[in-house]
Order: sequence, then C-alpha cells, then structure tokens
Amino acid sequence: MKEFELIKHFFAEQNVKRKDVVMGIGDDCAVVASSENQHIVVTTDTLVEGVHFPKDTEARAIGHKSVAVNLSDLAAMGAQPSWISLAITLPSVDEAWIAEFCAGVFELCEFFNVELIGGDTTQGPLSITITAQGLVPENQYLSRAGAKAGDWLYVTGELGEAALALQHILGKVTVEEHFVGPLIEKLNYPKPRVLAGEIIRDYASAAIDLSDGLISDLGHICQASNVGANIVLDALPLSEKLTNSLLEEDAINLAIAGGDDYELLFTVSEANKVGVETALSNAGVRLTCIGQLNATQTITTTLNNKAVPINSAGFEHFS
Amino acid sequence: MKEFELIKHFFAEQNVKRKDVVMGIGDDCAVVASSENQHIVVTTDTLVEGVHFPKDTEARAIGHKSVAVNLSDLAAMGAQPSWISLAITLPSVDEAWIAEFCAGVFELCEFFNVELIGGDTTQGPLSITITAQGLVPENQYLSRAGAKAGDWLYVTGELGEAALALQHILGKVTVEEHFVGPLIEKLNYPKPRVLAGEIIRDYASAAIDLSDGLISDLGHICQASNVGANIVLDALPLSEKLTNSLLEEDAINLAIAGGDDYELLFTVSEANKVGVETALSNAGVRLTCIGQLNATQTITTTLNNKAVPINSAGFEHFS
Repeated sequence: MKEFELIKHFFAEQNVKRKDVVMGIGDDCAVVASSENQHIVVTTDTLVEGVHFPKDTEARAIGHKSVAVNLSDLAAMGAQPSWISLAITLPSVDEAWIAEFCAGVFELCEFFNVELIGGDTTQGPLSITITAQGLVPENQYLSRAGAKAGDWLYVTGELGEAALALQHILGKVTVEEHFVGPLIEKLNYPKPRVLAGEIIRDYASAAIDLSDGLISDLGHICQASNVGANIVLDALPLSEKLTNSLLEEDAINLAIAGGDDYELLFTVSEANKVGVETALSNAGVRLTCIGQLNATQTITTTLNNKAVPINSAGFEHFS
Repeated sequence: MKEFELIKHFFAEQNVKRKDVVMGIGDDCAVVASSENQHIVVTTDTLVEGVHFPKDTEARAIGHKSVAVNLSDLAAMGAQPSWISLAITLPSVDEAWIAEFCAGVFELCEFFNVELIGGDTTQGPLSITITAQGLVPENQYLSRAGAKAGDWLYVTGELGEAALALQHILGKVTVEEHFVGPLIEKLNYPKPRVLAGEIIRDYASAAIDLSDGLISDLGHICQASNVGANIVLDALPLSEKLTNSLLEEDAINLAIAGGDDYELLFTVSEANKVGVETALSNAGVRLTCIGQLNATQTITTTLNNKAVPINSAGFEHFS
C-alpha cells in the first residue's frame, strides 16, 4: 500500500492557489473560508469503470470527465466552482496513467480556478468520486423547483452528440469519418456550462444539467416545480453530425433520451425572455427555446404541430 | 439502473435537520450557509470492501465506520462536524442491506448532529466515499504542524484493541471468549473523538487521529512540525484485553503499529499540560502522556528506561 501513498505527489502538483483555501492538501483535512454573503453549493458524483465510461477510456478523459460532471451540477445551481475533493480507487499504481489522469483533472480546475483541497487514494476496482463545492450569492442559487406554467423552456448548446459517440463506439451507428474525432471529444471531454449557469442565475426560474437525457431531466424540473411541459421537437438544437448520421426519428431520440450532454436545461418567465437571450448571446453561448411549461403535470411533445407520444426512452414510433 | 434511483428514499429518511442547510438532498446540489467567523474543514475517505473491511462485515458496521473515520479526521482538526456527502457503489440492490447500512450512518449522524446533504449511488464493486465537513472558529483549527521540541505527547483512550480484533478475525491470535464481542465492537464501531478534538483545540500545538498506527501517524506530526519524539512504551495505555491476550512485546507492537484506533494523538506545551489534563478529565475522556518531543527529527522509544529500536511496523526484537 506504500506505493498508493507515494502517488499523492501527483495530486500536489496543481497550479491553482485560491485565497479562500486556508490549508490545502496534506493534513487530516483542508480548511477553507467563506463569506457571510455567500452560500456554499455542494455536489458529489461517482464514475465507475464499465458503468460510466468504457474500460479503455484514456486516463486524461476520465480525469476531465470526473471533474466536468460535478462542475456541471454546480453550473445548474448558478454557482461558481471553488474546491474539489477527489477520491480515487485504483487496481494498481501505473504512474503514467495517473499523470495523464491528473492532467485531465487539473486542465479543468485551472480553467475554472478550482483548487483540489484533498482526497483519498485506495486500492480496488477503478472508480472516482469527486465532491465539488461552489459559491453563490446568498439565496440566489437556482434549483429544480420554481418553474411556473407559462415559463419558456431553454437549452444551451446542441443535444445528442455524446449519445451518438457512444452509439458509434458500441458499433450501433456508422458516422462519417471526419465526425468521429469531434464526437469522441464531445463524449470524453464535456464542457460544463459554468459561465452560462452564472448568467442565467439572474433570469431562470428553474434549472438542471442534462446528464440522464432531456425527457428524464425535464421530468425532475416538472416534478419539483409541479408543472408539465410541451417540447417542440422541430426546435431541438440537433447538430449536423446527428442529422447527417441518422434518420430524423433516431436523431430526435438521441437528443431527448441520450444523456451525457451536460448542457443546461432551464425555464424562464415571459418577462425574462429577452433578458436571458441577450445575456447568453452576448456571452457567446448558444441557446434555444424548445418548448413551454403548462399546468398539466405531464410532458408532451409535438412535431410538425402534431402531438407525438413519448416516454423517457424516446418517442414511440410514429407514422 | 432504475432500482439504484429507487434506493435514494433510504437516504432521505434521516432525522437531522440543521439550520445551516439551506437545501438538502434532492436537487443537483445541496446549499449550505456558513458564518464569517468560522472556517470550514473538509475531509474525504474511501472504504473499499476487502481492503478496509472484511468481505462479510455487517452493513450497519460499514455505515458506521464510513462516517466515523471521516469524523475522526475532523476531530483531529478540532472541528465540529456539520455535513456529509455520501457516495456508495453497490454490486446490486439489497434493500435489507441498505436499510442496515443507513442505520449505521444515521446513528452516528444523529449523535453528532451531522446532516447528510447529498451523494450518489452507483453500480459496481462495494465501496463508500464520504466527504465530511465541519466548522471551527476562524484560524483556530489544529493541524499536524505546530508541535515544538519539549512539548508533551498525549493520546486519548486505549490503543491496540481494533488491531487485536483483526488478528482474532484472521485467526492469528486467540483471545478469551468474553473479549471477542467488545473487541469486534471496537473494530467495527469506532467512536470518533469529536468532543476531545473540540476541547484540545484550546491547548494542543498539533494533532492527528490514529488511523495508520501510532508510529506512522506520529511520523506525520514530526515531519510537518520538523521535530522528533521519544515514546515511553511503559506508559502506553494498553487495555486489559491486550495484556491478557498477548505477550508484552506483541501487545506493545499492536499499540504502536496496529492502526484503526481512531484515538487522537496530540502535543501540548509545558504551559498547557495541566489545562488539557483538567479539561479532558472533566469531560470524562481518558488521556495519557506517552512521551515528549525533541529536536532530533527521529522517533525513538524506551522501555524500562532503556532505548529499544523500532520501525513503523513495530519495534525490533529485543532481548
């Protein structure tokens, strides 16, 4: 087990040094400071090999994604990420692998000024658990609750590319050769919508990040907010890679049920519609209005102005 | 994977509701509040089946220990525990097992008024990662650094019982029948020294919790504080269970190298000696002065006033 102690020096080699970290890695605990006018936002996500990423995924991607999925949760609350704790279980010590893993972790930490403040390294089947923390002005955090009937439903970026990448890896879909690289990049190196999260904090009534898939995650907003929603499928931001590789029905299915997009799904009142569109557009963030909330407590979808039946796995075959 | 979603309701059934938890389990993140005069102390520990606990350990013990080892780290900083995030990876969903596991987690949380604020449940080989947070008055946390030559070395409680329990389970040592129950209890249900940690905050120059073993953990204090130490082996608080079951040399070895004690090891200046002894004694916490620090940067031990050679695995055979 001594070698597991020795790899700690990899984790000590970060460049981020935050002023609010009173004591970082190296003692029994870390010590951080927060101010009275801020709330602290906390999230934990585990990635298990063979469940959350395929067995031969490159180490840098695993490091990146472990951080990204947690920062995406913080983004959905409108929080600015600040500190992470990292627990990694490894079958054996492969220094080159660990160096690559750390590179993936630290790239994202440096980009968002997040300090690794502690963690644990243990022996066992490969899995990574990160607890990420962020800061938000007091009582200004976003949540899944707060959406109202009549609010507009928005999503950042494009949907379905990560799911298409996975279909490609599994050999279920053939995509054009020049799409492969960008699609794998999208699956392995998701970019958490931290900036967008901080911007929509001033406009959105509810928000969630898209990890399970649009229908499933919208269901969480509807349940927490006690509303229903209609999605206009024609409006979904499908990338060219989807529309070129798949029939319309299959493309839409990946976009609404594929998961792993790590885009933000959020709701905005009529009064804040212009504001949020202007603010995100100024920040260079693509956003698309994909539907509207209602009082039905169910999720419906329309295509070409006609209702089409769906479930959380996608929409049922239509003719 | 749906059943993993369903078990979340077990984790929602806690009784602790803290005022500083603005939003608990159930959204993308939890939201907590802290005050300007407090620092937040953060620690993460993973327990892996087969590494940190034997394969047939009862679920309640695993739950208890997962929390206890983290609260023990907070205690070593002098912090009052406040919130935990729990990530559990399970091979399959066994509701009775999970209910027992939660009982173990919540017993300790309720005792120390700690709220479970979030987590993640995933499928894979059994392991538990907890991130625990605590509060400490600004700049009053303890650390491994700060011990000075001349300071006295103290330990709470008794040493070696958890290690003896493990030796018994592994069939390496025979103990008297009436010791078995209490020893297994000590191994499976360690009591983190939270109260003692808060008390010694006002007196100690450095502190650590005993997880790896006395020699190894004292080494961390010596390294961080740039000091050495001599341990008076005759003074070690060995329980009757050790002295009855083992030869003196073996008992001392378990006490200095066994690990899993989760007692506090701390250093106190001459000026604070009476104060800390009085304060802990008033709180009903046993404490023992087991040696003194010096400027040598090495750890030595004496028995019957004679130097005996040691290493981190115990002391070398003496005649």
